[in-house]
Amino acid sequence: MNPSRLSFASDYMEGAHPAVLKRLCETNLEKTPGYGSDHYSESARRKIRELCGAPAAEIQFLAGGTQTNETVITSLLRPYQGVIAADTGHISVHEAGAVEAGGHKVLTIPHHYGKISGRQVSDYCAAFYADANHDHMVMPGMVYISQPTEYGTLYTYDELQALHEACRKYGLYLYADGARLAYGLAAEENDVSLHDLARFCDVFYIGGTKCGALFGEAVVIPDPLLIPHFFTIIKQRGALLAKGRITGLMFDTLFTDDLYTNLGAHALKQAAKIKAALKEYGYEFFFETPTNQIFVVMENQKLALFGERCEYSFWEHTDENHTVIRLATSWASEDEDTEKLIALLKELA
Amino acid sequence: MNPSRLSFASDYMEGAHPAVLKRLCETNLEKTPGYGSDHYSESARRKIRELCGAPAAEIQFLAGGTQTNETVITSLLRPYQGVIAADTGHISVHEAGAVEAGGHKVLTIPHHYGKISGRQVSDYCAAFYADANHDHMVMPGMVYISQPTEYGTLYTYDELQALHEACRKYGLYLYADGARLAYGLAAEENDVSLHDLARFCDVFYIGGTKCGALFGEAVVIPDPLLIPHFFTIIKQRGALLAKGRITGLMFDTLFTDDLYTNLGAHALKQAAKIKAALKEYGYEFFFETPTNQIFVVMENQKLALFGERCEYSFWEHTDENHTVIRLATSWASEDEDTEKLIALLKELA
Amino acid sequence: MNPSRLSFASDYMEGAHPAVLKRLCETNLEKTPGYGSDHYSESARRKIRELCGAPAAEIQFLAGGTQTNETVITSLLRPYQGVIAADTGHISVHEAGAVEAGGHKVLTIPHHYGKISGRQVSDYCAAFYADANHDHMVMPGMVYISQPTEYGTLYTYDELQALHEACRKYGLYLYADGARLAYGLAAEENDVSLHDLARFCDVFYIGGTKCGALFGEAVVIPDPLLIPHFFTIIKQRGALLAKGRITGLMFDTLFTDDLYTNLGAHALKQAAKIKAALKEYGYEFFFETPTNQIFVVMENQKLALFGERCEYSFWEHTDENHTVIRLATSWASEDEDTEKLIALLKELA
Amino acid sequence: MNPSRLSFASDYMEGAHPAVLKRLCETNLEKTPGYGSDHYSESARRKIRELCGAPAAEIQFLAGGTQTNETVITSLLRPYQGVIAADTGHISVHEAGAVEAGGHKVLTIPHHYGKISGRQVSDYCAAFYADANHDHMVMPGMVYISQPTEYGTLYTYDELQALHEACRKYGLYLYADGARLAYGLAAEENDVSLHDLARFCDVFYIGGTKCGALFGEAVVIPDPLLIPHFFTIIKQRGALLAKGRITGLMFDTLFTDDLYTNLGAHALKQAAKIKAALKEYGYEFFFETPTNQIFVVMENQKLALFGERCEYSFWEHTDENHTVIRLATSWASEDEDTEKLIALLKELA
Repeated sequence: MNPSRLSFASDYMEGAHPAVLKRLCETNLEKTPGYGSDHYSESARRKIRELCGAPAAEIQFLAGGTQTNETVITSLLRPYQGVIAADTGHISVHEAGAVEAGGHKVLTIPHHYGKISGRQVSDYCAAFYADANHDHMVMPGMVYISQPTEYGTLYTYDELQALHEACRKYGLYLYADGARLAYGLAAEENDVSLHDLARFCDVFYIGGTKCGALFGEAVVIPDPLLIPHFFTIIKQRGALLAKGRITGLMFDTLFTDDLYTNLGAHALKQAAKIKAALKEYGYEFFFETPTNQIFVVMENQKLALFGERCEYSFWEHTDENHTVIRLATSWASEDEDTEKLIALLKELA
Repeated sequence: MNPSRLSFASDYMEGAHPAVLKRLCETNLEKTPGYGSDHYSESARRKIRELCGAPAAEIQFLAGGTQTNETVITSLLRPYQGVIAADTGHISVHEAGAVEAGGHKVLTIPHHYGKISGRQVSDYCAAFYADANHDHMVMPGMVYISQPTEYGTLYTYDELQALHEACRKYGLYLYADGARLAYGLAAEENDVSLHDLARFCDVFYIGGTKCGALFGEAVVIPDPLLIPHFFTIIKQRGALLAKGRITGLMFDTLFTDDLYTNLGAHALKQAAKIKAALKEYGYEFFFETPTNQIFVVMENQKLALFGERCEYSFWEHTDENHTVIRLATSWASEDEDTEKLIALLKELA
Repeated sequence: MNPSRLSFASDYMEGAHPAVLKRLCETNLEKTPGYGSDHYSESARRKIRELCGAPAAEIQFLAGGTQTNETVITSLLRPYQGVIAADTGHISVHEAGAVEAGGHKVLTIPHHYGKISGRQVSDYCAAFYADANHDHMVMPGMVYISQPTEYGTLYTYDELQALHEACRKYGLYLYADGARLAYGLAAEENDVSLHDLARFCDVFYIGGTKCGALFGEAVVIPDPLLIPHFFTIIKQRGALLAKGRITGLMFDTLFTDDLYTNLGAHALKQAAKIKAALKEYGYEFFFETPTNQIFVVMENQKLALFGERCEYSFWEHTDENHTVIRLATSWASEDEDTEKLIALLKELA
Repeated sequence: MNPSRLSFASDYMEGAHPAVLKRLCETNLEKTPGYGSDHYSESARRKIRELCGAPAAEIQFLAGGTQTNETVITSLLRPYQGVIAADTGHISVHEAGAVEAGGHKVLTIPHHYGKISGRQVSDYCAAFYADANHDHMVMPGMVYISQPTEYGTLYTYDELQALHEACRKYGLYLYADGARLAYGLAAEENDVSLHDLARFCDVFYIGGTKCGALFGEAVVIPDPLLIPHFFTIIKQRGALLAKGRITGLMFDTLFTDDLYTNLGAHALKQAAKIKAALKEYGYEFFFETPTNQIFVVMENQKLALFGERCEYSFWEHTDENHTVIRLATSWASEDEDTEKLIALLKELA
């Protein structure tokens, strides 16, 4: 990476939020038992349970998102079942077939800016059960969504409730991937709280990797009887950390003094400044998002100049002269860099 | 954990070696690309390749041991093959069926203090191919060993060579699990270098979790063509870290200024003092080991007193009045604690 | 099933072609060794090899289509690979997730009357390899087609060659599911011989279940080195018959005196009469096919009357007043029933 | 196979019992719906339910034993569970790793003439739950036995009850593989009826392949709610026959006029004559069995002469001069051949 170049390429380019790292240093030589049975993990669990209004919830800390998704899906589905997801869902595209390697089909339905609706789920299930051959087909057993989605969009309370109801009607579990949850919770437009996630989802995870931790995701299962022996499945899928205290401590820190939402808000503040500049200077949005991911259509020649001075993520080509790029802010985005980016956007406008 | 009690229960009770943590802090806000393509990971790879005398080796960093074992085994075996291991092997007993969840049988053979021999492997394979029904049976496709073993013992150069030759004869891959490799490399009795591992094994891993890192294992594949698309398999098995730079940096530090062997030597020095004390005070060893794990037979009443003041690992009951316990030192063991343990052993002798 | 009602619902409603059953009776008490090592299986293999112009081909007989598909796909793919298929492919929809249960993703592309093209395959692969994140995605490893397709259509020689070339270009295996192959080989429009299948496909199977046998499919692997230990994989997937001589004998009979193509021709002759009648009486085809499956659009009230006197397969609703049905002939269709069907069609016209 | 040589090598060397084949011929051109929904299958189910005293039982017909075992085991176990079996169990040794390919570990315990006891199961489970690390290990979830065993021995009523009770105590399913059940049910020493199997086992199968059918096994699940969507799992595992009516009809015939036990009795009558002759002429039994498999120790030079005139199965070498062979009778064994075998045994005595 060229240090003289700006970078808004993604939200996992730095280490951990300084407060997290500080506590790792302070507690480094303390001895604790392994596999998440330590007091830091317990403290983090207590805080998360309280924030979710789910006092009995089982909480487990896993190392990364793909393993979390695969482990949860394998735990919930029976052999004859698959998982419904948007065709843009992370499990549908970018997890190298992890769900299938675990033996289950991903049943894709078309996305709308990264989202699927309760209506789509109901229609899918109604058509499935109406099919005379459905017992030769993969039965839908759960629904996978991301909050925020891979497109940076957010489910509203009503949309989440509709998904919940469709799932109840057709006997599906609802599971939410919260890899970037901090950037959803902190969004002005957001009306879905941790309480709501705990009420409407059977399982969800609170992302750490992209939200201030070195790595790690916190799985929340509001009904602790839902997945018997989840601990052993986590071990089997290679997702159990010997030094669970590390992840536990990182989440304990993230959920102390509102750090998790504060760091999300920081990223959104930077994003808001960039979005305002893009509008001011007449850039075209591919679509607008309420979170830390910004999708802009750039003319290719201009993009070449932009790319020399700022790293971005390629998203897709819209035509032969235009490209959609993604700019992402994070807890680590610095004001100074945001200002430089805005100046660059102005210069190229 | 009772802070007033000593603890020699295991070698993964603390965080990271201070030098490792220091570099994490120093580099925390640097931006790097993800998934192990960063310059810290590259630097660690260069150092490991050089230490192994394997200039072309593919090196990948994974989060933990069970996922490393499952990923490597899945990558190497064909559907009709299984992996030979000691009946005490970690994959045979303590990985919750991860290898079987990946579709393969663990073909166990009896251990001798945690080890298996080239002769045993040859005999197993000879019997397999002599069986008229062997094409209805699981074909051995690789051999799994641990260096040091789960019993703290070490393969000698000659033993490793004999395993290598048995594997060559019968078309098996040889794979070594080095979860505690630092404590093997630093042992006085050890005559197996990283060069030897790279020459005799098709794949092995250098343990970080128990040897100074927060977490992480470095897989070494001396022949880089051996496993095509290993990166994608790692992703699929949920073993790819987004912030690969963290693991890369930790291994880069462990392999700077001989830290890896030095921290191993530290643990062995503490272990040597404890072993000497055990002998002096007339304790009975279950068997002697050259590494950081010490197995002692304790009379149960004495053990009750011991346990009040020092944490240990239960190993097995030998009869109704005696118990084998394991004491483990590590890079983090402090002189002061070792002295206290020795005093306690003397007191109870 | 109402015996007074006609039935053109499917092509697997009877037992075996009488010539097949006759030989099962004649040889019933002969003793042979098991698992396909008997002389009947060998004889069938010789005949199939000769008809395919593949003198070295490995030929194995399995019990059914789904297990054949799953076994072949598992044998050929590596863990990180998936199989490209039409979205209407049998493995995509009607095998209850067998491919995913074996650990692999089905990568669907849109069908054209049940078929996919070499161009589509090339485009899919080109887009895959152009994607910067393709090593986080499931790599295409093979292409699955059916000949005839699930829609009763046929690949031409040129289309098959184009698929073959696309596969060669992108390192994919080409596999053809020949569940109804007899009805393809015997079609007037068909220009793809067993020789062509053996030349263009890496693996294909010759269907028995729907083509005159009690059950059974013959897998043909022109290059016998392609799948090492295929026999053991068949055993592992539960697809190996103890009394392999039964399947062997059935295929030996089907490939004696051109029975296989003759029984296919019989079904097509019946289908031709029905198609001519449908045209004569002004029925609308959903689309026309050259094989034994006939797809007709029926007005719903008429269909209710039709259904009282003739069994059919429901295919889909085109609008609220019309339904597509499938009529299938087979080796067992009797002239008399065909005439009755034609009379019924005339009456309802 | 040399037609002039006798053969007692196994019990699956012929086709089907003539009564079975006769009914296949009589009904061959009848049209029936597929996948086991036909009236022959229903009739067979009714008869089996009645014989088992299990009026609500779910009954499914699968093609072969390995696929039946894998399908049932996959259906019953959760991801973190394995299946306890004798180390000589068919699933432990001779199914090419089918259970592991389905994701589960076979937890072997030592056999006693092919059998395991309730006590062994209890001890295994007690030790498992006493192990402090058992949540890192594969939890026993079911017990697999064979009746008769692979060694031709039989569980008694009391032994089966003891296994049942051990299973209830530790939350395990009990599953019996009845590949050779006809030869158990007909044995004089046998005191385990189909009623008893239905009462003590959660699932068992009645073998057809080795007991008079061309192929096929009938799975009996006394509690029809035990395995939801078993049909779809059967389809997914490739074990569902399109022409289910064939298997249904074969079992319907086997359970008409006591054919199943009568053909078992026939085999046992032949076996009894051979056993008597072996005793009379001073042969040494490896161990005695109450069923159709006979295990004899032969001096190697004598065996060479014997082998020229009679096919047998090799079992094992006892020392360098002696070999254990297996002779098997079946429903198809002819009096004349039995007499010739006895004459040969006399001649070589």
